[in-house]
Amino acid sequence: MDLDLLREATRGQMPDRRWKHTLGVVETAIKLAERFGGDIRKAELAALLHDYSKAWPISRMEQIIREQGLPSELLEHDRELWHAHVGAWAVHAELGIADDEVLDAIRYHTSGRARMTKLDKIVCLADYTEPGRDFPGVEKIRKLAEKSMEEALIAGFDSTITLLLEKGRRIFPLTIDARNGLIEQLEANESQQSNVNGG
Amino acid sequence: MDLDLLREATRGQMPDRRWKHTLGVVETAIKLAERFGGDIRKAELAALLHDYSKAWPISRMEQIIREQGLPSELLEHDRELWHAHVGAWAVHAELGIADDEVLDAIRYHTSGRARMTKLDKIVCLADYTEPGRDFPGVEKIRKLAEKSMEEALIAGFDSTITLLLEKGRRIFPLTIDARNGLIEQLEANESQQSNVNGG
Repeated sequence: MDLDLLREATRGQMPDRRWKHTLGVVETAIKLAERFGGDIRKAELAALLHDYSKAWPISRMEQIIREQGLPSELLEHDRELWHAHVGAWAVHAELGIADDEVLDAIRYHTSGRARMTKLDKIVCLADYTEPGRDFPGVEKIRKLAEKSMEEALIAGFDSTITLLLEKGRRIFPLTIDARNGLIEQLEANESQQSNVNGG
Repeated sequence: MDLDLLREATRGQMPDRRWKHTLGVVETAIKLAERFGGDIRKAELAALLHDYSKAWPISRMEQIIREQGLPSELLEHDRELWHAHVGAWAVHAELGIADDEVLDAIRYHTSGRARMTKLDKIVCLADYTEPGRDFPGVEKIRKLAEKSMEEALIAGFDSTITLLLEKGRRIFPLTIDARNGLIEQLEANESQQSNVNGG
């Protein structure tokens, strides 16, 4: 299926507001891929499809999670997370997307995961910072995203975790794994850097 | 070994300030056990021993983690967590404590864990709230501890997680599992309660 048909198929899954957000994520993902040496074609594709199932009825998502062998622990966590896993399943089943990197970037765009790929980071960060986003701290995340996807994503996860703490809601363990993994990557980069400088 | 000898052995592992804290945790753990129907003898024992290895040199703790088969992932996390696992190993190896409930309460007193036992909760909460503790939010946690160990511990973990977010430090996944588990317990209690009231 070519990109125009995929665009049309995706457009049909969601209301205008969500489609506008999707176009913002596509635009931002392409910029991030250019800035940080990512695969621009995959970034565009994953960004276009990232919210494919977001507007689907909860009951439909629940049925897919139960019947298609998606991680059942999803059902214990915030529904906000369901659409990412259901979306990865759906674009594979309905649109024939078979690129695992793209499917993973869709699957983990909300939670993150322990060892995020460059494409995971691009889609997740574009989702936090696309021009239509407005939440406390978004400007700081956009600023950090000019230099470091890791620092920007840590700030993004911090804002999500803080919100969940304030609301007394459960925190998805993958988000903690993701944040810990990004901190480790930064520390590894810094120690490499200081070896270079010191050597 | 009787309690007096254990007290003496523990006293010898730490400076005055830490010993004063230990006595505060013992006193608080006994009160919590009385208030919430816990095993008072085990609460006293686990509280007495909970910081047995806290003042040990980092190098000694690291050696024990490496040589005694303790979870090696500990080494990737904050050193603050090491003494709890090393302490459980040490009171078993050096003092002959063989009660798994007591050893677990020592092992998980800093991080918590997914399905905390009543004894885990007593020791962890006593450690947060003993009279010598003074940190932002401690009064709120003490107040909550009059009614619900679960609500008090969630507030305690919230304060720990918030501090780690502010400092840009890694969050131990067990703490997230612990907090999520406590929220689930509260939700289960509430739904039981509303069934009773509604039925």
